[in-house]
Amino acid sequence: MKFTLDKKKFIEGLALASKALSNKQNAPILTGIYVNAYDNIVELQATDYEIGFIIKIEAEIKEPGEIVLSGKYLVDAVRKLPGSEVSFDYNEAEKIAHISSNKSKYRLLSMQSAEFPKIEKLDGGTSFTVKDEDLFSIIKKTAFSASTDELRPVFMGCFLQIEDNKLEMAATNSFRLAVNKLDIESNSSIRLIIPAKALNELSYAYKEDEPQDITVKQAKNQLGFEFGNIYMTTRLIEGEYPDYNKIVPKSAATTVTVDRTSLLSAVDRVSLISNPKGIQSVHFDIKKGIIHIDSNNPEIGKAEEEIEADVQGEELSISFNAVYIIDAMKVMRGDKIKISLNRNLDPVKIEDMEDTNFTYVITPVRSQQ
Amino acid sequence: MKFTLDKKKFIEGLALASKALSNKQNAPILTGIYVNAYDNIVELQATDYEIGFIIKIEAEIKEPGEIVLSGKYLVDAVRKLPGSEVSFDYNEAEKIAHISSNKSKYRLLSMQSAEFPKIEKLDGGTSFTVKDEDLFSIIKKTAFSASTDELRPVFMGCFLQIEDNKLEMAATNSFRLAVNKLDIESNSSIRLIIPAKALNELSYAYKEDEPQDITVKQAKNQLGFEFGNIYMTTRLIEGEYPDYNKIVPKSAATTVTVDRTSLLSAVDRVSLISNPKGIQSVHFDIKKGIIHIDSNNPEIGKAEEEIEADVQGEELSISFNAVYIIDAMKVMRGDKIKISLNRNLDPVKIEDMEDTNFTYVITPVRSQQ
Repeated sequence: MKFTLDKKKFIEGLALASKALSNKQNAPILTGIYVNAYDNIVELQATDYEIGFIIKIEAEIKEPGEIVLSGKYLVDAVRKLPGSEVSFDYNEAEKIAHISSNKSKYRLLSMQSAEFPKIEKLDGGTSFTVKDEDLFSIIKKTAFSASTDELRPVFMGCFLQIEDNKLEMAATNSFRLAVNKLDIESNSSIRLIIPAKALNELSYAYKEDEPQDITVKQAKNQLGFEFGNIYMTTRLIEGEYPDYNKIVPKSAATTVTVDRTSLLSAVDRVSLISNPKGIQSVHFDIKKGIIHIDSNNPEIGKAEEEIEADVQGEELSISFNAVYIIDAMKVMRGDKIKISLNRNLDPVKIEDMEDTNFTYVITPVRSQQ
Repeated sequence: MKFTLDKKKFIEGLALASKALSNKQNAPILTGIYVNAYDNIVELQATDYEIGFIIKIEAEIKEPGEIVLSGKYLVDAVRKLPGSEVSFDYNEAEKIAHISSNKSKYRLLSMQSAEFPKIEKLDGGTSFTVKDEDLFSIIKKTAFSASTDELRPVFMGCFLQIEDNKLEMAATNSFRLAVNKLDIESNSSIRLIIPAKALNELSYAYKEDEPQDITVKQAKNQLGFEFGNIYMTTRLIEGEYPDYNKIVPKSAATTVTVDRTSLLSAVDRVSLISNPKGIQSVHFDIKKGIIHIDSNNPEIGKAEEEIEADVQGEELSISFNAVYIIDAMKVMRGDKIKISLNRNLDPVKIEDMEDTNFTYVITPVRSQQ
């Protein structure tokens, strides 16, 4: 096994593969990256059984072969090498990979490649195609709302539904909900729960400069994403996703239209003083023309702020988890947002005035005051 | 107490004062920043009894006064405020400071200002003056060599000596030594041990764009540094500093002249494979015209590298702590360095060919091979 390849591409591929490296002590082979050289391709694989990557990199193959090397050391060694090209030479007898560039040489002991659980691309099953930037965008607008509570696995996922050429993704931790819709061309009918962590890895994955299609395939409890030279697989979460549509308010006693970035910075500033240990709650006094935002911590002091707003309907006094407001303001893009409110503890809907496909719902918290 | 001041200057001053905030739970007053408004000055003070800062900022004082506020919250609040000017208004009756800018308002509860251990500038004693950039430079070239072992307090300090218009600073952890000399105009005769941590804080402190003089004063076990609007004080370390000159080799069986950045990157790369838990030792084979550098970890593999060098005298095989080499290469500035070696475990001298004032000595480690 012997090849040379471009250092920059090798580093990019290894960095992506690293995201699937396991840190479980009881399965050392999963701390390895599988390297397979054939045709004019070096293929990298890594998996922690939750997610897995197959990454193909163009290379000059002088002798095909396959091995597994410690992921951590392979990544660091290639990163540290000088020059722009890397030579890779595996000595079968010694079981040692020689990785070099100019006068720098690393020799890494190989792991048992036969033990590596090779990733098979999904064949058959349901599939659909979506533009990479569209998929990454709906992930970034929803996945942050999922729960990290391992006791409630269903809430750690994003719900994906395709029906009648409409794709819908939703995530909730039961205190907040983010839903994003997208028109796609697909005859598929799909309802899945995908781990939010896997979707986050995907959306921050190596991205080509040119927009490209991602083909998504499902078979049994696995989902595969294929785009360019990258294939990512993730297990699916089993269970029934709650019917979140019923908590989205259909009407509003109070409607507030406000500048998104003004609200973001006001809540960010005021939240400094709220309880640093419990929920960072901030209190909104919604009156004609203004929102007065404040928070209180008897041991520290108080913060307050006033922002202009177009308020329709009843005046209202209500408190929120500041983080839930800040997160949503950060993923929205429009200048203005619309907040629809009812009674004190009823769910509150927040919409981006420039993106009708996105809906966000939060449950208020009990006021301190 | 009432004043307005420039937000940027206030933030800079608060950030510097924060470096002296204590995190000791048993003295809550030391988590506070003392704010004193008088004439056209806002003075900030903070101390953890190890170091202390007095920082003066120009301000428009409408009503003089003094208070102590939680350092953490004061810094964060001012940082988060919008606009370019901050209004500060202390309500004596409520014991609350109102800090505001535009429509953003913070109210912070004050602490007992009478309890704050105000810093007195040192008066009398020995003193000398040095250019800020010279002092910061000799600190950066020596303080990193001090120990962090609290059981050997003397080694946690930098030794400062002034004699016959020569200033000398040295730091050692007993395995490495860095010494830097500087010509100054001073009739003082001084021998002090200054905590390396305090000197590091000082050298990374707020720095004026224009070079300025620092006046250094000693009285009893305190040292004060005054420059521009900043005064820093530190306690001194008591004890006898070892006579480090006797370990500096006076002659050499082998002399190596080598490119500094080549040595730095070679040792950095090779050290990747050395034992990540113990000392990161790297092995040098010094031959005519080259240094072959390698390291070995039986569980991971091996790294090796060769760099060109001008080698005079005997060939030698010797091992070093990689970190000690890397640290020194980073603070030196010349293109070439000179390494003077004797027998295998004798101290090794490293000099910057473009800075005769700097000397670095390291003790080799036993070779793995």
